[in-house]
Amino acid sequence: MQKSLSVYDSDGSTFAPLVVIELVSETKEEAIAWLLNRVRDKQQDGGAELLVEQLTPGAQGTEKDNPNVYVVGASWQRLLYGAEDVGLFKEFNDGSMRGFTYANKHNFKEFQGDGDGFLSMAECQYIIKHELDNLRAKDEAHVPGYPKMKLYPGKSVIRRMQSKGILVQVFPLHEKEELKRLSFSWFKKIKLSFQPLDDIRHYFGEGMALYFGFLEYFTLALIPMALIGIPYYLFDWEDYDKFTVFAGFNLVWCTVILELWKRLSASLAYGWGTLSRKKAFEEPRPGFHGVLGVNPVTGRAEPLYSNAKRQLRIYLVSVPFVLLCLYLSLYVMMIYFDMEGWALMIHDEEPTFWTGLLLFIPSIIYAVVIEIMNLIYRYAAEFLTGWENHRLESTFQNHLVLKVLVFNFFNCFASLFYIAFVMQDMVLLRQSLATLLITSQILNQIMEAFLPYWLQRRRNKKAHKRMIKTMEDKELPLSEQVKLEADMSTYLGTFDDYLELFLLFGYVSLFSCVYPLAAVLVVLNNVTEVYSDAFKMCKVFKRPFSEPAANIGVWQLAFEAMSVIAVVTNCALIGMSPQVKSYFPESETQLIMWVVGFEHFLLASKFILTFVIPDVPKHIQIKLSRLEFESLEALKKRVTGYMRCTADVTLSETPIRFIIQV
Amino acid sequence: MQKSLSVYDSDGSTFAPLVVIELVSETKEEAIAWLLNRVRDKQQDGGAELLVEQLTPGAQGTEKDNPNVYVVGASWQRLLYGAEDVGLFKEFNDGSMRGFTYANKHNFKEFQGDGDGFLSMAECQYIIKHELDNLRAKDEAHVPGYPKMKLYPGKSVIRRMQSKGILVQVFPLHEKEELKRLSFSWFKKIKLSFQPLDDIRHYFGEGMALYFGFLEYFTLALIPMALIGIPYYLFDWEDYDKFTVFAGFNLVWCTVILELWKRLSASLAYGWGTLSRKKAFEEPRPGFHGVLGVNPVTGRAEPLYSNAKRQLRIYLVSVPFVLLCLYLSLYVMMIYFDMEGWALMIHDEEPTFWTGLLLFIPSIIYAVVIEIMNLIYRYAAEFLTGWENHRLESTFQNHLVLKVLVFNFFNCFASLFYIAFVMQDMVLLRQSLATLLITSQILNQIMEAFLPYWLQRRRNKKAHKRMIKTMEDKELPLSEQVKLEADMSTYLGTFDDYLELFLLFGYVSLFSCVYPLAAVLVVLNNVTEVYSDAFKMCKVFKRPFSEPAANIGVWQLAFEAMSVIAVVTNCALIGMSPQVKSYFPESETQLIMWVVGFEHFLLASKFILTFVIPDVPKHIQIKLSRLEFESLEALKKRVTGYMRCTADVTLSETPIRFIIQV
Repeated sequence: MQKSLSVYDSDGSTFAPLVVIELVSETKEEAIAWLLNRVRDKQQDGGAELLVEQLTPGAQGTEKDNPNVYVVGASWQRLLYGAEDVGLFKEFNDGSMRGFTYANKHNFKEFQGDGDGFLSMAECQYIIKHELDNLRAKDEAHVPGYPKMKLYPGKSVIRRMQSKGILVQVFPLHEKEELKRLSFSWFKKIKLSFQPLDDIRHYFGEGMALYFGFLEYFTLALIPMALIGIPYYLFDWEDYDKFTVFAGFNLVWCTVILELWKRLSASLAYGWGTLSRKKAFEEPRPGFHGVLGVNPVTGRAEPLYSNAKRQLRIYLVSVPFVLLCLYLSLYVMMIYFDMEGWALMIHDEEPTFWTGLLLFIPSIIYAVVIEIMNLIYRYAAEFLTGWENHRLESTFQNHLVLKVLVFNFFNCFASLFYIAFVMQDMVLLRQSLATLLITSQILNQIMEAFLPYWLQRRRNKKAHKRMIKTMEDKELPLSEQVKLEADMSTYLGTFDDYLELFLLFGYVSLFSCVYPLAAVLVVLNNVTEVYSDAFKMCKVFKRPFSEPAANIGVWQLAFEAMSVIAVVTNCALIGMSPQVKSYFPESETQLIMWVVGFEHFLLASKFILTFVIPDVPKHIQIKLSRLEFESLEALKKRVTGYMRCTADVTLSETPIRFIIQV
Repeated sequence: MQKSLSVYDSDGSTFAPLVVIELVSETKEEAIAWLLNRVRDKQQDGGAELLVEQLTPGAQGTEKDNPNVYVVGASWQRLLYGAEDVGLFKEFNDGSMRGFTYANKHNFKEFQGDGDGFLSMAECQYIIKHELDNLRAKDEAHVPGYPKMKLYPGKSVIRRMQSKGILVQVFPLHEKEELKRLSFSWFKKIKLSFQPLDDIRHYFGEGMALYFGFLEYFTLALIPMALIGIPYYLFDWEDYDKFTVFAGFNLVWCTVILELWKRLSASLAYGWGTLSRKKAFEEPRPGFHGVLGVNPVTGRAEPLYSNAKRQLRIYLVSVPFVLLCLYLSLYVMMIYFDMEGWALMIHDEEPTFWTGLLLFIPSIIYAVVIEIMNLIYRYAAEFLTGWENHRLESTFQNHLVLKVLVFNFFNCFASLFYIAFVMQDMVLLRQSLATLLITSQILNQIMEAFLPYWLQRRRNKKAHKRMIKTMEDKELPLSEQVKLEADMSTYLGTFDDYLELFLLFGYVSLFSCVYPLAAVLVVLNNVTEVYSDAFKMCKVFKRPFSEPAANIGVWQLAFEAMSVIAVVTNCALIGMSPQVKSYFPESETQLIMWVVGFEHFLLASKFILTFVIPDVPKHIQIKLSRLEFESLEALKKRVTGYMRCTADVTLSETPIRFIIQV
């Protein structure tokens, strides 16, 4: 952990600043004093027992700077207790991953001395975030100084202040030295090597590392498809026999790589200690509101919102809205086909070089419009899902992902489906596929990395200069660093990155048999994507809080659904090809029956394959069952122990009762 | 629990006999003495701490009777500790289901006095079986008196003696009074009422109760289909429009009932305390053999068998064998069609009443042959799966179920598929379906309940008379009861019962649109099935050990797979119907495209429906999360507690470490 920066706390001792809390500049004194006291209070008094100090403006500080910026840290002991609290898994002396406990700390592999350096900075920051989020109101009826900012026993203080807008942001600080090393090994040297996933996980947490791991895996997995696709393009193999072979290979390949990813991600997550980690009880998300009632699970006072009302909002507003958007998307598609026809007409009338170029214009315009519609829809979906008022962040995310996926799938692929199955024009399909794919790749790279970078550069040109200096020089006062980082854009999570990969996967798999070059393009895109994503994480955005993750979650399902749809589309394309048709010159019925039979066979094989390949590699399964077995044995020993000395039973009744409930 | 019977143990006090152990009559004295000692030894000395006595032959005892019959019981306290050991869930004071702990016993709802009557007899027997199974060899190299019966530390003594054949059987005793009451409320009064599932569970355990629950649910769920099917039969609606409606209804209905069953079974299992119960670590099955090595999970000495060898056995022997059997089944089917054609020829040449009857003969013969082939194959499959040498009982069962299911499905339905899709003869399909269904129902009822009953009756006619008397009179010496029960057939588990339901479900769902009366027949069959199954459980078989179960396991999957196949077959049948064909007079291609599209739509809906309907009802989900939340809170309090008084930490280090591992 960084030692270079430190602040003096109220007792005069120093602590390393980990997390920054920014309140609005006009926050009332009493609210600030109350919040700081609650953060500093001992845990038995309901506080978070953390260290927190106001940031003293540096030499270059101006009047305009917000004075209400606080840095938070904690003692090593506090952090170790916190690690036990959040259920962190660490490597044990025997090489297995076990839940860390303070009492047992010396049996963990990397624990030395007083435990300084045992936790990574990202873990410390995650622990502090967890402790801050779990700082709960006691008997305060409202935030002091703000009678309207209601509190009730058990309400998370930070979340209330966040949802009411007096808490601007809470973010973790970058660690310059480590970031420098990471950047260097990650994207600054251009050579063929795997990404430093362990370092990424060490700095950004498991969720981010799994994204980059998946991106890398996905790219590598596409290389065989790309290699097989290249000769098709080079030698112009219009031969559908060969295309059929290619499509068949693709379908099997898609299934296999998705299954293998599950195993790889289980291996990664086991090594990072997130695979067997128990999920903590989920608190309501900050934006959730309702009438105060009693939660049937926790028995705590908490806002409740009727499920029936939420269902009404979903089915009477959200679903019609999504359908309307889909209709709109279809309408835009039809306009595109009109434009396409119009361009073709002009070209046919008097073909010149310029009219030849004109032919590409509608596709490019359509690709741009698609991206814009996706962007607008994304905001609408977020607003609607927020308005549906889901209690949990995970439910919110699932509903959001579903809405966005359906629309993006439709928006991006509807025109291709139309061309393929209604117009049945394979040449146009190939051309559209290429234009859509290339345009959306270029747009994405611009939107994702260069636009935020450029915007930020414009916004604080002066500050930026200082930042550049920071990255090169070694020392910069803490206050300066905090201010610089506070002004950086906030990374909104891996959602958009996964969505992009999902759509690319669609371009590769859905119509792979008509455009084998798609895989090549996607591989090239992904290689640059690794660099631009790494760049944006290190240079453009605030450091995000690390999120423990054991897998890529709902995206695994989305990718699998896409590969099922791909089976259907590819079989249909194969059935429509003239070569296959020529095998059944007399009866079209027989052709269709064969294709449908083949498709059903493929689908059944897919499901059996998914079922047969174990999701967790054998050696990790053994390690997991060993832990489980040990805990069962320990339980048995406890039970027998009590039989031997029944006097003990009354002495320590609470722990036993508790043990069985776990 | 029964009080009427009791035996004197070595101290002169009495205990209620629960379980019977029968050794072969020529077992060596030293082996017997050693076994009894191990069973009686204190737990800290590695014993089972149970009470066991030799059965003293009664007045009617003859020379021929096996003297080596022992009855096992336990003190109430031992049973309560055992209940904690096996992880039994019981109703807590607040109405929730919690893991029973001895220390906390007075907080459980039905716990009164010293706990007599708190556990049902079936639970006591299950606990004793568990303790017996877990009686492990210490440093004995072999069973005393049998140098060839090798033991190694940790090997289950009972299982070794069982696999080597000197332990004939271990079975729980019936409780006459309770059995009488159960029989009366279950099948002796003929009136419309639900089965006494709670009583069945109380007497036979959760696995059995879930089977009868499923049987009842399945029957009730078929009633709407049966009611809709009756007019089709009565009014001879040959109208395919109506059949299409019927098939559509069926497909949706099948999906819905299977989903609802999951919810119902979760409710039942929650109330019985098996839903949230943790699975105990699985020991190798008795028949498993291999070279002694170290189990990587437990670290114990244990026979190991190379996975590669097992895979070779599976893929080089079992799979070819199954394929061969499938081919044989096809061959028999072809012979059936030849016979069918021959009978038809005779009837056509000179049609009389007798030749009309002759038409049914081939179908009936075929149905009988199918049943016989299923039976033979069942034994072959069991032998082969045993030879594959699976380590766990659950893996063994899965491989057995898969083998048996594939063959039975093929054997029972191949001819129907052939008639439907190759011959496309709907009249013959309906006739075959009816013959197969009715014949197999009659055969099943005979094979299942009356044959074992009759065989047993023949085998011990005298004993049987006494048994009849037992059931009527009240008192019979313990030795007589034990001997009677030891001679009863052994119930081999719910496998065959589920398999029968599975095949019936196939008859109803696969070709429902051509023979709507199938549902009626199956409902009638199931009603008698309830009675014959109840009868055989109470009167024909030995009492089985209760098996805790939270759901119907692999059968849920099997039924769901069948309902997916039903979508495909029914759509195909609809597409082949003349009425549907007449909608597309010009193009057969269009017809097929529509049918395929409709089928894909149905399949997609099925998957979405499965995904959308939660598997556990809301109110039970809340109860489960409440327990989980409480244990998390308790964990937190423990952690905070330690921070307040760190002196405690060293004092009770073991429990904390242990808590986190759970």
